[in-house]
Amino acid sequence: MHFMSDNAASVHPNVWQAMLAADTPDSPYDGDALSAKLDEAFSEVFERPCWALWVASGTAANCLALATMVPPQGGVICHREAHIETSEGGAPGFYTHGAKLMLADGDGAKLTPTAIQGVIDPIKPGVHWVHPAAISITQATELGRVYTPAEVTEIGLLARDRTMWLHMDGARFGNAVAFLRSTPAKLTCDAGVHALSFGFVKNGGLGAEAIVFFDEGLADIARYRRKRAGHLQSKGRFLAAQILALLDGKLWLENAMAANEAAAIISQGAADRLLEPVEGNQLFVRMSGAEREALRGQGFAFYDHGPDGARMVTAWDSRPEHCTAMAEAIAAL
Amino acid sequence: MHFMSDNAASVHPNVWQAMLAADTPDSPYDGDALSAKLDEAFSEVFERPCWALWVASGTAANCLALATMVPPQGGVICHREAHIETSEGGAPGFYTHGAKLMLADGDGAKLTPTAIQGVIDPIKPGVHWVHPAAISITQATELGRVYTPAEVTEIGLLARDRTMWLHMDGARFGNAVAFLRSTPAKLTCDAGVHALSFGFVKNGGLGAEAIVFFDEGLADIARYRRKRAGHLQSKGRFLAAQILALLDGKLWLENAMAANEAAAIISQGAADRLLEPVEGNQLFVRMSGAEREALRGQGFAFYDHGPDGARMVTAWDSRPEHCTAMAEAIAAL
Amino acid sequence: MHFMSDNAASVHPNVWQAMLAADTPDSPYDGDALSAKLDEAFSEVFERPCWALWVASGTAANCLALATMVPPQGGVICHREAHIETSEGGAPGFYTHGAKLMLADGDGAKLTPTAIQGVIDPIKPGVHWVHPAAISITQATELGRVYTPAEVTEIGLLARDRTMWLHMDGARFGNAVAFLRSTPAKLTCDAGVHALSFGFVKNGGLGAEAIVFFDEGLADIARYRRKRAGHLQSKGRFLAAQILALLDGKLWLENAMAANEAAAIISQGAADRLLEPVEGNQLFVRMSGAEREALRGQGFAFYDHGPDGARMVTAWDSRPEHCTAMAEAIAAL
Amino acid sequence: MHFMSDNAASVHPNVWQAMLAADTPDSPYDGDALSAKLDEAFSEVFERPCWALWVASGTAANCLALATMVPPQGGVICHREAHIETSEGGAPGFYTHGAKLMLADGDGAKLTPTAIQGVIDPIKPGVHWVHPAAISITQATELGRVYTPAEVTEIGLLARDRTMWLHMDGARFGNAVAFLRSTPAKLTCDAGVHALSFGFVKNGGLGAEAIVFFDEGLADIARYRRKRAGHLQSKGRFLAAQILALLDGKLWLENAMAANEAAAIISQGAADRLLEPVEGNQLFVRMSGAEREALRGQGFAFYDHGPDGARMVTAWDSRPEHCTAMAEAIAAL
Repeated sequence: MHFMSDNAASVHPNVWQAMLAADTPDSPYDGDALSAKLDEAFSEVFERPCWALWVASGTAANCLALATMVPPQGGVICHREAHIETSEGGAPGFYTHGAKLMLADGDGAKLTPTAIQGVIDPIKPGVHWVHPAAISITQATELGRVYTPAEVTEIGLLARDRTMWLHMDGARFGNAVAFLRSTPAKLTCDAGVHALSFGFVKNGGLGAEAIVFFDEGLADIARYRRKRAGHLQSKGRFLAAQILALLDGKLWLENAMAANEAAAIISQGAADRLLEPVEGNQLFVRMSGAEREALRGQGFAFYDHGPDGARMVTAWDSRPEHCTAMAEAIAAL
Repeated sequence: MHFMSDNAASVHPNVWQAMLAADTPDSPYDGDALSAKLDEAFSEVFERPCWALWVASGTAANCLALATMVPPQGGVICHREAHIETSEGGAPGFYTHGAKLMLADGDGAKLTPTAIQGVIDPIKPGVHWVHPAAISITQATELGRVYTPAEVTEIGLLARDRTMWLHMDGARFGNAVAFLRSTPAKLTCDAGVHALSFGFVKNGGLGAEAIVFFDEGLADIARYRRKRAGHLQSKGRFLAAQILALLDGKLWLENAMAANEAAAIISQGAADRLLEPVEGNQLFVRMSGAEREALRGQGFAFYDHGPDGARMVTAWDSRPEHCTAMAEAIAAL
Repeated sequence: MHFMSDNAASVHPNVWQAMLAADTPDSPYDGDALSAKLDEAFSEVFERPCWALWVASGTAANCLALATMVPPQGGVICHREAHIETSEGGAPGFYTHGAKLMLADGDGAKLTPTAIQGVIDPIKPGVHWVHPAAISITQATELGRVYTPAEVTEIGLLARDRTMWLHMDGARFGNAVAFLRSTPAKLTCDAGVHALSFGFVKNGGLGAEAIVFFDEGLADIARYRRKRAGHLQSKGRFLAAQILALLDGKLWLENAMAANEAAAIISQGAADRLLEPVEGNQLFVRMSGAEREALRGQGFAFYDHGPDGARMVTAWDSRPEHCTAMAEAIAAL
Repeated sequence: MHFMSDNAASVHPNVWQAMLAADTPDSPYDGDALSAKLDEAFSEVFERPCWALWVASGTAANCLALATMVPPQGGVICHREAHIETSEGGAPGFYTHGAKLMLADGDGAKLTPTAIQGVIDPIKPGVHWVHPAAISITQATELGRVYTPAEVTEIGLLARDRTMWLHMDGARFGNAVAFLRSTPAKLTCDAGVHALSFGFVKNGGLGAEAIVFFDEGLADIARYRRKRAGHLQSKGRFLAAQILALLDGKLWLENAMAANEAAAIISQGAADRLLEPVEGNQLFVRMSGAEREALRGQGFAFYDHGPDGARMVTAWDSRPEHCTAMAEAIAAL
């Protein structure tokens, strides 16, 4: 019973089917018929023109997006717990040629306008200091929390006022949309987001994420940078196929809802132990080392979260009976 | 009848089968059971310990390998026609942080010790000049030619004498091995090669190449650099599965032989027009614009090669009857 | 009466004299007779073989030194108040090709082994995380504090144990040596420092700092990187001349003592207001905005230090009567 | 009798005088009164608004200028003999974060529109290829030749048509202006040049070059990049002082004329041996190894230029009697 991470979940049958169907000769790289459909498909999702590029990983998606926004001498404001800061092996520094991550704090790994201004305000004008050129927020956050449309909008307005770009790391964007019962547009372009890393790998895909740009100029740069980073795969049609399969009939949303529901089941057994509200498919549960040991002894797999906590993540394919078992096991501790 | 490039060929059924079989929960990134088998599998192929990393593209393979070998202030000697120089969108400059490609000439896009020394010798000692730290050769070359084991060895000895690393871009390594009826080891580690980009995508794979290191220290650096480049995919087991399927029973060699045989069929109709000997699966054929037009009118797809030539590439799945038809069509021009 | 910063102080007459004397034809870059003397001159100062390069600025000295130590995928542990973090316009990211500054806290802008371990310990093994390859400490610190030989040694031992390099930003190294009445060697190479940015510009020089390496391999890399950064000036003899003039007869130490004494005079009037002990030539004085206003009205120039503080820096050429006046003015507030 | 290079010539007395006069307290970096005068001083020289930054070396000037013009994924077209290609230790790759130098040929190390188009035309559209974003020409060239205003204009028009920037490496700009009896404006901004590395070090300066931008946006970027490269010296007033002293009364032009006249004297003895017309202060003379040996035996110092040539460079301080002696010695060979 595996609740380690959604990033190793299984691949949705529709995705397999679409990939197999794509195995006919077509032009290489992104010159194929499927890749050509992406812009339109995402424009429909986001209810306005947008430009989308497939890449193989969330790290590549985030860092390519940021590299289009931030000059090497600039900076990116992000949360201290942001994936780009904590878990990407220095990839932002690589892709941006040394731009600086400028860290802010906030509950639930969420940034607020106040926290962002707390980073900006002490920076004096002039060349001795790095000036931020972008803000990056994660939706849902690394602690499983979501930004409401209003919260994103507030940050979007701040970005606009300060002439900064706004990037959203949406490795679990589907889970946030599902939880909020909002629309993709309201959480991104309508709220001032310029580029979104739209995650599919954790949500039924195999090896394809999308960078969705709401600014054509950024997308144009990104295409060159993607090739330059070795991320323009020659059989790109198989990446496009995955994404289109997950967009088709909003399968991405259906999968995300399934994952969220699985998490909700577990949370019922852990209500009094939750370190963070469960707003998607991640649970952070107060739990001693002995308790974790006990659960693992019963066949449950999950990560530690600090010395006295556990992190459990559900996926589109989490089986309800496993979740119920986990809930009961936690309740029984 | 498609002879554009092997990089858009179909995926071998065994590869699909292996990928589908890999769709069970396992650890993410390269922590899964399949990825763990790679070193051993390649060590068997190369008859000595080696360390292998999967990546999604040949550009990533080449540039990650070079980035482990060459400091930013150094250089890489390669042929003027090398893929890293002509077709990777500046990726070597990105991965190596600005190291310099130092170009040499040679028939058939092949480097020779003399040509390499012609690059090195004029470089004076001292900090005003970029000094090469590696040589990169392509096997088979961008013009479809192969290096014999003796030729690689000569370059390997030169590299050793000058304290340089030797990298081999083996996007079509299988085709070279098949043509030469040699062994992987004789063409690489036995001959002084330190890292090989072993191509699978053009040879029945979907989206997985291997960087095979014959030096453990280089591999250790590459692992960090792979993550930093966003190439450590979270469902890496599907890349490992592809590679293992193609290594299994030497399917890679079988596929390469099939591609070479397909090229041999075409070459029979083009014997007096060949611009380069056919030593693998690429043909460079003297052909006027009108002749190309005529062939295309008959349903053949291929690239121009300069104003008076055509480039045709076969793949593991090229159908013999298509090749025969092409041969006859050329002969009939 | 100017106490803004020592970085705009006047040039010592001996330095001018040495520069004028150097205005005879000699080889360009660092091929001249004066540059050739640097290694020996510093080896005498540090009582062991060392290798020294001149550069024009402290930022260049720090970042070139770090770039020799830290791979692009690595990190540098430094204090949150370190000049490389706060005031170099992102130069560390430029020179190291995107390596990460990893921040620790500590009183007086001083690092301690405990603080350093607090950065290292949470870092899990593996490629997802940036691993530090060097520690950088500032002597005297940005808050005017010094590390004793024992304190540096503790950090040096930690660096050794963790296989990290140790860099010292010695923009005000002379002031620290003078305050501690120690020797250059005890504070650096004897204590485990591998490279020192030895500052002269703030201490009577015009535009020359030295990077002193206690490891020949690092110096060899630095020479190439210096040229690559455009810091190998063609008339390098004028930089060497400045440094040699300041080393001659320990003029650097004499100048530093003069600056420290000037600070000591001021501190007498501010004893009950000091935010940090005065251990060199920098004073951090508790002072309201109105008080600062009052002092400035009397002709004193200095920087704010937060909302309720002032930062005053003396130099080798601070006039005692100005310092006395400042002391009295503060006392009279 | 020293004709090695003008880069080690002596410093003009006016420059010394101006530096000594600048030794009064002022704001650090470029906040001083002298640095503040630069824009106006150059705007007068170039008869239109321009923005100027001092740096310590020609390599820094060239590479900072290019880094403002060229994105990392772009390229710079330059001559195969350009200093940025041959002699800057990879600095362009460092400053531009890996952009590519794209080499063209041409007599006398001069680019022509035809040669430049010969580089551009084969580049196909798309992300697989590096696209040039700037052209860099050297005035006077590395072979001592000059571009006429009409020639620069032709290149400027081509740059405009192709939406590329035009940079001029003017390490010996004064010599070109002097030889052509033209104006600075006609050779640069009037002709389509966007940034000029205006050399002073070879022409009576000590350690200051100017980057003159004819585009304010480029200058704004350059200021940040200069700091980030450690080239914002804290006592910048001494660099500004040098430049202002050389601009004052057109001393730079007077010095360049003196150097050119010295070269003209030598050329009279070498008329039938000149490998290139003498259009400034550099001479390239056909000369066997034995002949070089003979001259050196008579006390003349100069560089080899290939196996059968000599390169002699005069400077503002070359003594006429030395030049006459050299001319006679060559004639007597």
